[in-house]
Amino acid sequence: MTLNKLVLIRHGESKWNNENRFTGWTDIDLSDQGRIEAKNAGQLLKQAGFIFDFAYTSVLKRAIHTLWYILDELDQAWLPVEKSWRLNERHYGALQGLNKKKITVEYGEEQVQQWRRSLNITPPELSDNDKRLPIYDIRYAKLSLDQLPKAESLAMTINRIIPYWKGEILPRINNGERVIIAAHGNSIRAIITLLDQLSENELIQLNIPTGVPIIYEFNSQIKTIKHYYLSIVNKDY
Amino acid sequence: MTLNKLVLIRHGESKWNNENRFTGWTDIDLSDQGRIEAKNAGQLLKQAGFIFDFAYTSVLKRAIHTLWYILDELDQAWLPVEKSWRLNERHYGALQGLNKKKITVEYGEEQVQQWRRSLNITPPELSDNDKRLPIYDIRYAKLSLDQLPKAESLAMTINRIIPYWKGEILPRINNGERVIIAAHGNSIRAIITLLDQLSENELIQLNIPTGVPIIYEFNSQIKTIKHYYLSIVNKDY
Repeated sequence: MTLNKLVLIRHGESKWNNENRFTGWTDIDLSDQGRIEAKNAGQLLKQAGFIFDFAYTSVLKRAIHTLWYILDELDQAWLPVEKSWRLNERHYGALQGLNKKKITVEYGEEQVQQWRRSLNITPPELSDNDKRLPIYDIRYAKLSLDQLPKAESLAMTINRIIPYWKGEILPRINNGERVIIAAHGNSIRAIITLLDQLSENELIQLNIPTGVPIIYEFNSQIKTIKHYYLSIVNKDY
Repeated sequence: MTLNKLVLIRHGESKWNNENRFTGWTDIDLSDQGRIEAKNAGQLLKQAGFIFDFAYTSVLKRAIHTLWYILDELDQAWLPVEKSWRLNERHYGALQGLNKKKITVEYGEEQVQQWRRSLNITPPELSDNDKRLPIYDIRYAKLSLDQLPKAESLAMTINRIIPYWKGEILPRINNGERVIIAAHGNSIRAIITLLDQLSENELIQLNIPTGVPIIYEFNSQIKTIKHYYLSIVNKDY
């Protein structure tokens, strides 16, 4: 029996993951370690026999490059790829670029944990004249003003992913296409929340490692049968 | 005045360019030299101030990777990219994989020149049980049987590009979008023939170097005002 499968992967380690800085929509590239993680993920998928029909990623290079490395390992560079801002990392507002430890010293652990882990709390916004605002970035030129965040809570991130998930990605999975999504910690948490109807508490506990393929297997109604990290490949796969 | 511009680029040197073998639809990667050519092309485009709205390429990795290197140099990895078999190199049939010099010794220079340069002569076809036939390659799984060549004349290559050019690419250029096409010697010759209404004789003389951006500037009716190779960047550009 052929099951519908979906592969989710958070980008490999980025230079700012490595430096422990809030990244958000800042377009930071993979670190050397991140490149290795991405290639390894591609190798694992290849050894497990994965072939894809369609790929999604964000408009941020750490996710795009992760996908490119994976496609090269699979010898599927020719795969159609759609890049969408809706799969971007959560926008971390004025925290972007700042060191997480320094912020913790300044604001206290509880405040930082709320910014990082809560569902509805929004970090401090970028100010209106901040050159880092998405409105100044040509990749977002076609978006309307109300689509361009100055900061996002996790709930806001989930809400902007929902129409893309329902309107673009889910129809392909329903259609039997084998889909891979290379995205970010919080956009993947959002998708998992939609797939598994996580409670707020479960969602807050959920942490996604960099560069590890997450495999979802569905029944014909796209209900999750099982999900697991692809690490050591099971011979019976 | 903002002119409509189009950038065409043949992939950087491939491993089989380097070995002087017919490549066609064989999915051969760039050589080390080809990677350098691709990055240099990206640097030239960057220095000349090019920014793009949309990119097209084939489903062959030497063109796709050339585009990826260029997009990385431009810091536009996020650009939407459409990959189409219609932009593939001409299918060289049973000549694919063979050394051009050896073929010349075997068949004579005149015959080989006709296969390589004439408009209407088709090289020997792949046989019906040849595992290299596109029908055995999943990237072409959605195509109909009559779209899958066993070998192509240059005229056949031009004919399969025309609907894509008219239906997909030209509407974007008409719409003011800045387009780059990373493709192959013969698919680029085909596009130039369509743009400049080349005679058969002009077309046969036309040879496209690897990894050099070709810039077309159009008036508002998408008639060519001028075209040139981008090499040393003009300061007044």
